[in-house]
Order: sequence, then C-alpha cells, then structure tokens
Amino acid sequence: MKTLKIIKIGGNIIDNKEVLNQFLVSFSKISGPKILVHGGGKLATKLAHKMGVEVKIIDGRRITDLATLDIITMTYAGKVNKNIVAKLQANNCNSLGFSGADGNSIISEKRPIKDTDFGFVGDVIHINTSTLELLLDNNITPVFCAITHDKKGQLLNTNADTIASELAIGFAEKFKTELYYCFEKNGVLERLEDENSVIENINPKMYKNLIEQGIIADGMLPKLNDCFHAIHHHVAKVCIGKPEMIFNTNSTYTTIQK
Amino acid sequence: MKTLKIIKIGGNIIDNKEVLNQFLVSFSKISGPKILVHGGGKLATKLAHKMGVEVKIIDGRRITDLATLDIITMTYAGKVNKNIVAKLQANNCNSLGFSGADGNSIISEKRPIKDTDFGFVGDVIHINTSTLELLLDNNITPVFCAITHDKKGQLLNTNADTIASELAIGFAEKFKTELYYCFEKNGVLERLEDENSVIENINPKMYKNLIEQGIIADGMLPKLNDCFHAIHHHVAKVCIGKPEMIFNTNSTYTTIQK
Repeated sequence: MKTLKIIKIGGNIIDNKEVLNQFLVSFSKISGPKILVHGGGKLATKLAHKMGVEVKIIDGRRITDLATLDIITMTYAGKVNKNIVAKLQANNCNSLGFSGADGNSIISEKRPIKDTDFGFVGDVIHINTSTLELLLDNNITPVFCAITHDKKGQLLNTNADTIASELAIGFAEKFKTELYYCFEKNGVLERLEDENSVIENINPKMYKNLIEQGIIADGMLPKLNDCFHAIHHHVAKVCIGKPEMIFNTNSTYTTIQK
Repeated sequence: MKTLKIIKIGGNIIDNKEVLNQFLVSFSKISGPKILVHGGGKLATKLAHKMGVEVKIIDGRRITDLATLDIITMTYAGKVNKNIVAKLQANNCNSLGFSGADGNSIISEKRPIKDTDFGFVGDVIHINTSTLELLLDNNITPVFCAITHDKKGQLLNTNADTIASELAIGFAEKFKTELYYCFEKNGVLERLEDENSVIENINPKMYKNLIEQGIIADGMLPKLNDCFHAIHHHVAKVCIGKPEMIFNTNSTYTTIQK
C-alpha cells in the first residue's frame, strides 16, 4: 500500500509570508502522493474588520452568517488558496486548489441549532475520493481550503483540522494515510510555557487524564478530538508539531496512539 | 474528433442571481465535455469601494495594483468561482474550479509597460491541457475564473474573454472546439439600440468595415479580436449572443467567420 501524507498548516504559517514560503519549498520536495490542507489565519478577521462585518466567536468557533461566509470564501478559497497554489507551481509542485464543492469531494450538512446557531457551518458527512485519486495518481497535489458544500448549492464553513482528519480517514482504505498537524509549537506540551516539555506519545487514557488536569484545553481539545477520531478510523499515523517533524527525522513532536 | 464546448459568461449573468441560477441549470444539461469561463461582474468593484481601494480603469481595462489583485483573487477565484461550482454540483454537474495556476493550466507574463503600467495584468503565453484533459475524460467540468500565473509564484489578472479563446485554441488539436461568448445582447448589433439588428455572420473584411463605421467600438473591440484570434487558430466555431444560442436552435446570434 502506498503512503499518502495529509498535512494541515495553521494560521501561524499562513500569516507569515516568509515562514509560508519556506514551508512550501519543503512541502514541494516531499515525494509520493500528498494533500495540503490550510486554514485562513487572521486574514478573514482582518477583512471582516475592513468591511465592517462583526466577528462573533463562541467557544473558539466562528459564527458564520452570510456576510462572514462570503468573507471566508473570498479569503480561504480565493486569496490564500490561489497564492499557495501559485507558489507551489513555482516550486515545480503541480498543485490544484480545492474546496469541498470542487469535484464534489467533501459533502457536509449545516450544523443543527442546539444551544448556539453557528450559521453556515458544516459538519462533514461524506468524502468522495474519486477525483482526488485521479489527480494523485497523476502526480497532482490537491490543496484544500476549509470550505465544504451540502450538495444542494450551499457552501459551508468547516474546521480545517476536521477536513484534514476526514480526508485521512476517507483515503485510509486505498492508502496508508499519515496525518500531520503543523502549528507553532513542538507538539502537545506538558507545560505551555516550556517548549521542551513535549509529550511525545498520547494514548486515549493519557488524553483523558491530561484533560482532567487541565493540561489540554481550549483550541487543543477539538484538535486532539480530530486526531483520535482519525487514529481510531484506520489512519496509520497522526502527529502534531512544527513542520520540521515531516522533514527532519531528528525533531521532537507528539504522536497520537490508539 | 469529439466536440468540446467552451462557454464564457459575462457580468450581466454573474451579477443577477436568478439569471445565473437559470443559466447553470441549462449549462449542467449540456452533454459532452465542456468548460465554463466566468468574469467577476461588478463584485470586485463593489468590494474595492467597501475596502477603500481606488478603482482605475484605462481604455476599459482595470489597472491592477497589489490591493486590486487581492480583491480580484478574492471575488473571482473565491466567492464567484466557488458558488458557481457549488451550484453546478447541486445540478449534478461534477465541476472543479480553476485559476490558471491550478494544474499549471494557464501561464501568462506580466504585461510590459509601454504607455500604461497595467500592473499585475497577465498576457497568456501557454496553455497546459494535460490536467484539464484528465478531468474532461472523467466527466468533470472545469470552471475558470479570470486569473492566471507566471509560474514564478505570481498571480496575474487576465481578461476572461482572452482566457476562453486561448483555452479553445489550446484544445483545438485534441477536440473540435466551439467557443461561445454569452452576454446581454443577441449578438453584434448593427444599431446598438435595436435588439433585432443582429449581424448574423461577420468575416474579417466586414469586421474592418464595421470598425471604420464606428459600429464596433469600446468593449466589443477586444472581444471580437479574441473571436477572430480563435477562428484563425483552428477553433471550429465562435459565436456571440445570449446563452439561448447554445440551448435553443432557433435563436439568433452572431457567428464569426474566417
């Protein structure tokens, strides 16, 4: 079975032109099939401010009214995605930008209203791998922004971490899938202020303890939920850390264990 | 030889939600390989106003500084392109959004500065059909926005009419290509105010005369230049008119002749 690497990059990489360019040079050199998933960084919030659209975030999740969905579509699928694709082409990595609507690759449903109405936020219900496989087989690298669709004509805002894990799960039958979450830290840290306190392996039992101790909280909670969801659904490898974890065999990072 | 239809829609379709939806329903029903090319309509100008970015147009062409390029990328490749793709998916037309950077499909060079510095405007120098063919062969419909790249990492604003004609020329070796320019009129009109004065056929000699008489002027000039460029480079059919010309055999429109 061939290995497919799915790499998600977060805002700290997207927001820093130099860091992004350097990452894309390294990413281009990865041999074998690969998929890049990116968030939008602070651009969407900046554009919302410029346009006078109010930014509402509840529990770390963006409330997505129609004006906000437009802003997200413009920044994620437009500016960020196309600039990444152009940079990859310059590095001789033949890439192709995707939202979940493209190739009907990620179908989601609008999140039902319970306590909070998140608006046009989509929860992934199905991954169509056929178009993506066709491209991967021809050495073309899909680059995903964090937008999906409901197959009824509606775009939906979807968490980029979730898109990465669902893609990894969706491909797990056909590839040995490896999922890499790249962010600004060396991994999950025992002490937030100490970059050297990386927890190198986390299993579900440890995860439960770390939550109880308050060591894993806030934004790390949904990220780690996506990680465990993937590792329990046939994804071969799930890691969290700086991009170096992919390119440098000596680096320290966190590996998720079953 | 199989027929490939390349259909370009202009601002009057993009800017009217009802008209666009109706067009996309009809477009979805076209059998055989097809490519859609769209402009951005008035959205880019509207967004520029909202963001306080000055709009400079010389000889009907937008001067594209970096802020304007961002706005164009956000509206054309983001909002317009992704919403069209989502709508096509709802109509069971499996489509995939493209800029020229995607799949390295349209390479352009920044227009040299002569009298006017147009900024980040690209003139097409090469069409790569391989990724597009792969998709067309698998019944996937590419949807192009009017953005290209220079293969050195720079996105460039490129006229949508030109993109459509260059794609039609690029595919002319492998397909019998037909090029349809859809806009708000029934075709090239002898008298601008009379919808029934459609000139049904135009050859180069007539074109020269029509320019001399001032009947063809302004925005129609570059559009017709693109038309004649296509018909003189192995494109089988080039037409201008309302979308009905594609779907209704009884409609009147303008056909370009060698």
